Amino acid sequence: MEIAELAGRIVAGDRRALARAITLVESRRADHRAQAAELIEDLRVRSDAQAIRIGLSGTPGVGKSTFIESFGMMLLAQGLRVAVLAVDPSSARSGGSILGDKTRMERLSREPGAFIRPSPSQTHLGGVARRTREAVALCEAAGFDVVLIETVGVGQSETVVAEMSDLFVLLLAPAGGDELQGVKRGIMEMADLILVNKADGDLKPAAMRTQADYAGALRLLRKRPQDPEGYPKAVCVSALQEDGLAKAWEDMRHLVDWRRETGHFEGRRAEQARYWFAQEVRHALLAQLETPQARAQMDDLARAVAEGQITPTVAATRMMEDLRGD
Amino acid sequence: MEIAELAGRIVAGDRRALARAITLVESRRADHRAQAAELIEDLRVRSDAQAIRIGLSGTPGVGKSTFIESFGMMLLAQGLRVAVLAVDPSSARSGGSILGDKTRMERLSREPGAFIRPSPSQTHLGGVARRTREAVALCEAAGFDVVLIETVGVGQSETVVAEMSDLFVLLLAPAGGDELQGVKRGIMEMADLILVNKADGDLKPAAMRTQADYAGALRLLRKRPQDPEGYPKAVCVSALQEDGLAKAWEDMRHLVDWRRETGHFEGRRAEQARYWFAQEVRHALLAQLETPQARAQMDDLARAVAEGQITPTVAATRMMEDLRGD
Repeated sequence: MEIAELAGRIVAGDRRALARAITLVESRRADHRAQAAELIEDLRVRSDAQAIRIGLSGTPGVGKSTFIESFGMMLLAQGLRVAVLAVDPSSARSGGSILGDKTRMERLSREPGAFIRPSPSQTHLGGVARRTREAVALCEAAGFDVVLIETVGVGQSETVVAEMSDLFVLLLAPAGGDELQGVKRGIMEMADLILVNKADGDLKPAAMRTQADYAGALRLLRKRPQDPEGYPKAVCVSALQEDGLAKAWEDMRHLVDWRRETGHFEGRRAEQARYWFAQEVRHALLAQLETPQARAQMDDLARAVAEGQITPTVAATRMMEDLRGD
Repeated sequence: MEIAELAGRIVAGDRRALARAITLVESRRADHRAQAAELIEDLRVRSDAQAIRIGLSGTPGVGKSTFIESFGMMLLAQGLRVAVLAVDPSSARSGGSILGDKTRMERLSREPGAFIRPSPSQTHLGGVARRTREAVALCEAAGFDVVLIETVGVGQSETVVAEMSDLFVLLLAPAGGDELQGVKRGIMEMADLILVNKADGDLKPAAMRTQADYAGALRLLRKRPQDPEGYPKAVCVSALQEDGLAKAWEDMRHLVDWRRETGHFEGRRAEQARYWFAQEVRHALLAQLETPQARAQMDDLARAVAEGQITPTVAATRMMEDLRGD
């Protein structure tokens, strides 16, 4: 199929075309990469549809799948179309630890208004990031109203997700005691909304305590210019009982509307585009070391360096000459 | 001066030649870089003198200067020559926050057998690392028996120091309570020897408690193949009263001797050389973005990306074409 035809079908809402396009952007073949770039450029010109991109992080056990399922069904009931993507650099090793199969979100995956796609299988977070970011652009062009980008929060993956989202949601489980869970300060500072899940049954009091703890911690953080009064905020939800989800969505909408009015929404997207451009250039520079010839040459030089026949600096200079084709 | 002559003087123990050579390796000028590489290659061939390279990390307030002074004076008294270098990526901003002036180690700096050199002023840790590593090689060729490489432990600087040291020493102050200080697990795992300083006067009981806590924590760490029985270990010292320093040096010597006999010493140096080779290649690849032309082009493309005229991927492709001179 021609790229232009594929683009046309995506914009017309053809889900199979969308799935095929995502497969294209996930490919590492050079010709596929070129086609993918052409496709995304075509769609950029063709469509100015804009989804709300929601980054969602939560460690295993907080009920992320249940939340996405319930939250997604609620959005569908409001007439919105929802795409779910994932960033999981561990999926190459584990064979897809998150979103590996759609049975995790059985109801949502059967809905015509929903689109669920597992994380691309890549060993490098940089590769996962680019492919997911391109998949977000495809879903946006395909007219989805909300794109949820999920991560399990391994190492840098939250940063990656936050850098491609309009707002960042942190999902937590009720904590045992009265102390904050081991959430890193950097993650806290990225969160626009903290949702304490499982606020139902026996866990409800613990959930409310946890919510109060985090609300207190958020108040101690420096006020950010991109936040309206009362944000970032922490609230309780029960994905299981579908409780508090409509209110959480209202909170998200309020935040997005305020940011749109104040210019922060577009400003953030512009900053993110700059960020990804710089990241891609760095990635491309370092990818020069990944060809079979470069690897072989690196191995030879590393051996000579380890044996003390050549200093690291001289070996590096020689490697750079080789890469430049001197 | 010719490079060969400079090399000859360094090997002959000329301190002014050494200082001049370090200035050369710290320079960012391309012709100086080439001369520095030539010098280090010359010295590699000319001399097989090998110092014990000791990495030393400790946050401000643990008494690092006092320790280096007392420990250095003790080594001198044993007839050993000592060089002190520093890795401090913040020194460019602060104008030299550690080892900024020699008054910090007044006695040691006046000794003919000691050589003290502040951290190179560089904004990038990568730059500081390379220059310090080359300075270590120079000090080694100049016949110093011990090279102490100090860092304040900002971000990644401990890793950098550990990767250029034969053993890594963590200096701590007595903790207030019975809980471990906020030493990151990764730093703990790098340490071959933990020295709890200020084990004197009122602080002695606290120092002993802290030492016991860390000794316990070290026992919980996985046994490393490069350690003899009883290592890594935690001991008390008092730099002020010059107490425990000879014993600490004995512990270090024992560790180094054991590693030499078992091949771990040379193995580690070989691994480090490989590591620095790979780091230098990465650094050199990314340095292509630091030329005035590349910066200007990056700025132009970033602006177009932020304004939505071009996607990050297409912009990155264009940048790579520019760098290749297409």
